[in-house]
Amino acid sequence: MILAVCLNFALDLTYTVDELRPHTTNRVTEVRSRAGGKGVNVARVLDGLGHEVVVTGFAGGRVGDAARAELRSAGLVDELVPVAGETRRTLIVLEDKGGEPTGISEPGPVVSAEEWEGFVERFTALTAGAGGVALSGSLPPGVPADAYATLARESAAPVLLDTSGEALREGVRGAPAIVKPNRLELADLADGDDPVEAAQRVIAMGPEAVVVSAGADGVLAVTPEGVLRAAPPEAVEGNPIGAGDAAAAALVAGLVAGTPWAERLADAVALSAAAVHAPVAGSFDADAYARYRRTVVAA
Amino acid sequence: MILAVCLNFALDLTYTVDELRPHTTNRVTEVRSRAGGKGVNVARVLDGLGHEVVVTGFAGGRVGDAARAELRSAGLVDELVPVAGETRRTLIVLEDKGGEPTGISEPGPVVSAEEWEGFVERFTALTAGAGGVALSGSLPPGVPADAYATLARESAAPVLLDTSGEALREGVRGAPAIVKPNRLELADLADGDDPVEAAQRVIAMGPEAVVVSAGADGVLAVTPEGVLRAAPPEAVEGNPIGAGDAAAAALVAGLVAGTPWAERLADAVALSAAAVHAPVAGSFDADAYARYRRTVVAA
Repeated sequence: MILAVCLNFALDLTYTVDELRPHTTNRVTEVRSRAGGKGVNVARVLDGLGHEVVVTGFAGGRVGDAARAELRSAGLVDELVPVAGETRRTLIVLEDKGGEPTGISEPGPVVSAEEWEGFVERFTALTAGAGGVALSGSLPPGVPADAYATLARESAAPVLLDTSGEALREGVRGAPAIVKPNRLELADLADGDDPVEAAQRVIAMGPEAVVVSAGADGVLAVTPEGVLRAAPPEAVEGNPIGAGDAAAAALVAGLVAGTPWAERLADAVALSAAAVHAPVAGSFDADAYARYRRTVVAA
Repeated sequence: MILAVCLNFALDLTYTVDELRPHTTNRVTEVRSRAGGKGVNVARVLDGLGHEVVVTGFAGGRVGDAARAELRSAGLVDELVPVAGETRRTLIVLEDKGGEPTGISEPGPVVSAEEWEGFVERFTALTAGAGGVALSGSLPPGVPADAYATLARESAAPVLLDTSGEALREGVRGAPAIVKPNRLELADLADGDDPVEAAQRVIAMGPEAVVVSAGADGVLAVTPEGVLRAAPPEAVEGNPIGAGDAAAAALVAGLVAGTPWAERLADAVALSAAAVHAPVAGSFDADAYARYRRTVVAA
């Protein structure tokens, strides 16, 4: 089983409007509602690959109930921990006229010290049955900045960390097996023009491997098996939201299976590119994945 | 008891952001959540005036449950009728940098023919205990265009109608005691440059009285007691959302009490102006109301 941690669990609402015009009233023509948060995207991709997945994190209020119900109806195992506050809504507004989506995100419930302690206990127990753990996304208000370091240390299974900002800077000190920053997040972690040197400085902070994603340019990894690179064989057009979560899913699956790093990286790039072909975060185009899997090589 | 009908009942979410920037991700700093819809605004104002009020309309799903819970916690009597679809969310985005709010409104649940028939029965029973009825706002999808005409005919108590478009054009045929269009809605109901003549043509369609609101210019009424006008004594700055619902509340309260039309109109203008002073729809500034009530005269 793989444990997908989504501390800032959400109800994702996707609205379609003709054109979003600020300072007027906009009529929504289509509403889609589903469980969201980066950890949920990772869980959906792993489930799509046939892995057994359990989702944990915090959920509260009627919004939390709605998101949990959708998660379960999608076939995912719900081990979310109740919290007194209300789960956040994350709104994505799509326009018929085209263009980039507009995101409007609530901050999330404030988690109390007792709720956080209760979560750490539950998390630790769940990791006893896990082959690997993915820690994904931002921290809800109230959770300590070093939350991911605590979880990485308490976990009975190897951990992948995919977050940003202070949560990332503090989290690497918990020595996760893999940390997956993008170029900007890497620069925030360690100075230096050369990403290999910067990644090596991050490894000195605790992680065993650093996988640096650079979107269409693919990934660079500094691993116990050496420095490796992989890139998609073609420019991929589509929906980039969730592509990084698909890469995280491939990396944690490789961590559980213990596959060679070159294979893990090629898989991460192929799955990430196949996710760009899919219309919503958490899904991937299976045909594209199979095709990319034959052509992407890490070296 | 006054029955406030809110067929397109909603959960109003008010978000505060720094500045709403389309095609980026916007972080919400404050979330307020309450029951909404024009009928709910009318009910809140009537409740604030000390009237006994009952709210009916359709409510469904977890969003409906959340809105009903807030309505009851505000002390209003909830006689909403369950519907299989999910109650709509209506989003208002306020910006710290100032400027007009942005509305983003879901369409509302599709009401089936059976659900509509069930509602008409429940409505008819509720009107037996009512002194007056306010029919406010748009119709949810699935409800027949002549819904308000049906309700006006079935009602055991006199009815005020405040809606727009086809719902208004069809609704006036049910001969409500009062119809309350604004200038644009009046033009949509009856041609003519002269609003008094246009209102008289509306009265020929069935209503006993027509009250035409013109924002800061006050109101014009064609009533069984003659043609009357009233305007606020000063330009009022503030939040105009819900001002029309406050006027509707005053008019239905006057209808129940049987006060002379000049008094009803003066009250509607005073309460509407006092609502502009209040930060949220459904509330009014009691001091401003008392002050305007002494100065506004209809003639």
